[in-house]
Amino acid sequence: MAELAGNLLVAQSGGPTAVINASVAGVIQEAGRHPDQIQEIYGGLNGILGILNEDLIDLQEEKRQTIEGLKHTPAAALGTCRYKIDFKKKPEHAARDMDRLFQVFQAHNIRYLFYAGGNDSQDTAHKIHDEAIKRGFEMRVIGVPKTIDNDLPHTDHCPGYGSVIKYNATTVMEIAADVGSMATDDGSCCIVEVMGRGAGWIAAGTVLAKRRAVDAPHLILIPEVPFLQDKFLAKVKETVAALKYCIVVVGEGLKSAAGEEIAADRTKLDAFGHPVLSGAAERLADIVEENLRLKTRTVKLGYAQRAAAHCASETDVDEAAACGEAAVRAAVAGKSGCMVKLVRLQNRPYKWTTDLQPLGDIANVEHLVPREWISEDGFLPNEKFIEYAHPLIEGELHLPDAGGLPKFVVLEKVPVEKKLPPRVRSGDTDLVARA
Amino acid sequence: MAELAGNLLVAQSGGPTAVINASVAGVIQEAGRHPDQIQEIYGGLNGILGILNEDLIDLQEEKRQTIEGLKHTPAAALGTCRYKIDFKKKPEHAARDMDRLFQVFQAHNIRYLFYAGGNDSQDTAHKIHDEAIKRGFEMRVIGVPKTIDNDLPHTDHCPGYGSVIKYNATTVMEIAADVGSMATDDGSCCIVEVMGRGAGWIAAGTVLAKRRAVDAPHLILIPEVPFLQDKFLAKVKETVAALKYCIVVVGEGLKSAAGEEIAADRTKLDAFGHPVLSGAAERLADIVEENLRLKTRTVKLGYAQRAAAHCASETDVDEAAACGEAAVRAAVAGKSGCMVKLVRLQNRPYKWTTDLQPLGDIANVEHLVPREWISEDGFLPNEKFIEYAHPLIEGELHLPDAGGLPKFVVLEKVPVEKKLPPRVRSGDTDLVARA
Repeated sequence: MAELAGNLLVAQSGGPTAVINASVAGVIQEAGRHPDQIQEIYGGLNGILGILNEDLIDLQEEKRQTIEGLKHTPAAALGTCRYKIDFKKKPEHAARDMDRLFQVFQAHNIRYLFYAGGNDSQDTAHKIHDEAIKRGFEMRVIGVPKTIDNDLPHTDHCPGYGSVIKYNATTVMEIAADVGSMATDDGSCCIVEVMGRGAGWIAAGTVLAKRRAVDAPHLILIPEVPFLQDKFLAKVKETVAALKYCIVVVGEGLKSAAGEEIAADRTKLDAFGHPVLSGAAERLADIVEENLRLKTRTVKLGYAQRAAAHCASETDVDEAAACGEAAVRAAVAGKSGCMVKLVRLQNRPYKWTTDLQPLGDIANVEHLVPREWISEDGFLPNEKFIEYAHPLIEGELHLPDAGGLPKFVVLEKVPVEKKLPPRVRSGDTDLVARA
Repeated sequence: MAELAGNLLVAQSGGPTAVINASVAGVIQEAGRHPDQIQEIYGGLNGILGILNEDLIDLQEEKRQTIEGLKHTPAAALGTCRYKIDFKKKPEHAARDMDRLFQVFQAHNIRYLFYAGGNDSQDTAHKIHDEAIKRGFEMRVIGVPKTIDNDLPHTDHCPGYGSVIKYNATTVMEIAADVGSMATDDGSCCIVEVMGRGAGWIAAGTVLAKRRAVDAPHLILIPEVPFLQDKFLAKVKETVAALKYCIVVVGEGLKSAAGEEIAADRTKLDAFGHPVLSGAAERLADIVEENLRLKTRTVKLGYAQRAAAHCASETDVDEAAACGEAAVRAAVAGKSGCMVKLVRLQNRPYKWTTDLQPLGDIANVEHLVPREWISEDGFLPNEKFIEYAHPLIEGELHLPDAGGLPKFVVLEKVPVEKKLPPRVRSGDTDLVARA
């Protein structure tokens, strides 16, 4: 494959994680090792949106220590977006976006594109790759995996996942110590809601907090296993009878046997008579309090869990950075249209490497927790899951601190001079007006 | 003062914290240095409840390293309770409890009693102290301060407070990085609910996350400043216009100008037509979404914040342990009926010591955030507050870990042989039946 010389563009997309910036750091640092092929190193602000708006920054203007500092700085330092180029639902809109993207690539001689994100982002990268071929624009496009939800297929796991479960498992241990120490004969229950959308990986990961049979979590409810109220209540009751308290972890996307999300509580109505969306933990708390007359409290970690750099897994940070580096190496070697994936070589001691998977295999496939990794009663992940998840949380970061709080880096964001006229904004309203 | 020889009893009460066990470790370790006066070292399980039930454990049966490990183990290792000896509302019940307590003290020759807790617990300690004098039972009773709420009077601050605000401020920094990196022209808002009941100390403490004017939190709502919806909405709107996002921290006990907690949302009714208690953050999110049409998410850290040993302040741990030690030294020196308090000597560098305050000055006084420590518009603590709070979060613990998660200690809890017949349970139902 002939050497391709040009500029590099890296962007981040979708929900942030504690380690997605480590992948960007990996891309930038590896890019610096290939000066013959990679000339300028640009970042696109707010993912594809920033590229459409020609909002590029010059990452070579950043201090070397800032780039290194990205490895312990949570969230998306370049900004992110949830913008989707949707050829199915909005073909004209999508076609216009694609034209604009290639105008930007051409204007800035972008020959290396790295896009870090989850399913939707890999889908976007895939479309850009196909389009480049169609247009005869020589460009290498590599996806960098990222999602706390851990639902990308083909990769052993996703950067971001190890850190979220390390933080959540730590938090569950601490909450359990608290609730357990207050437990009296009256009994009590605490329900911790975690993220993960339709996949139970994050909720399941909290099982790592359970070192002894009596330890929390006592029940873990995941979307892959339909919620059965009576079975659930019986298990809570049994746990409280034995231990005086019960810690339940619930994935936000928990579903009923009918496939409906339980977070929607139809017994509560707002002032307009619409059902109130109370969240899975609140919904379960209502069920427990109403049926068991048990004091029940909820915790909803929300964004805190995916941004918790102070409790990130060193393994996860290393893997995230390595995915960024591997993406650049692959592109420089002539690959395109692939996503970097993590491959597990062995468990004890844990060894891993990276490899590539065609983007076409990734997009729109949701990887769920296998049923055989969950106990028969559906309430706890089993040894197979623990064997899988355990290595991913190993190792602590020691964050630089300032005055007792972490010191995160902020990019200078020196803008790259624009070469195109402003984008004609083709928002939804625009499309609606023409429909 | 004559030397008093006998046994020691330590117990914990009220809501746990990340460092209340450090105070117990301080008591036990200091007690070991006074073998002439202090013979046995007992712990009461679940606070006053355990003493009533004669559920005592022998703390000299614990390993030395377990006691040291208490300094980084969250929650109440001895168990805690919210039981109140209430002479006003339940005089007969209270008198019977008091008789029973002194039977237990007598039976086990308890001459040194240390009770770690907040307002209610100090009140209990005070009553026991008075009762000992009345009964001519020679016993030294010392209160050890503890409460994340930081609402005890006379002490500069309370052990537990520094750790909760260190964790919460760290979490707010991380959430802000996350929300900020997703911010687009559509704008967004995130509301983080923290504890503190009627006092705003915990919410106010998150101001430490704010290093630059643009940093989060952008608004901090505390119970000491009445909530005015229009002013609040205007401030959120202004912030989003400037920064594209807004992070709000709200103390759970936020009140309206009429003095009502805003968490009670009267526009939502449950199946029985009663107002739903949705929590302060959820209530504010509804207000923001309805009025500003702004995407709004909530985080409710709940118990996670007060149990977060993995992010505890080293200063806080040191002070908590020192309070336990000071309590024993005071008792051995002949003091009784006092609470240990923390005294600030200077700020830069921060220096502190301990002193004593009569228990009669503590009970039932709630120490709130002074109005002059809050900005004129009521939305942010000012420099005076920062000067006060900042030293309390300094220093990181390096928790021992096992497999990527913290290693907390668990007490063996070797029981002390009971010497009394079981307590006749005089529960509320009993009293109700006799009323």
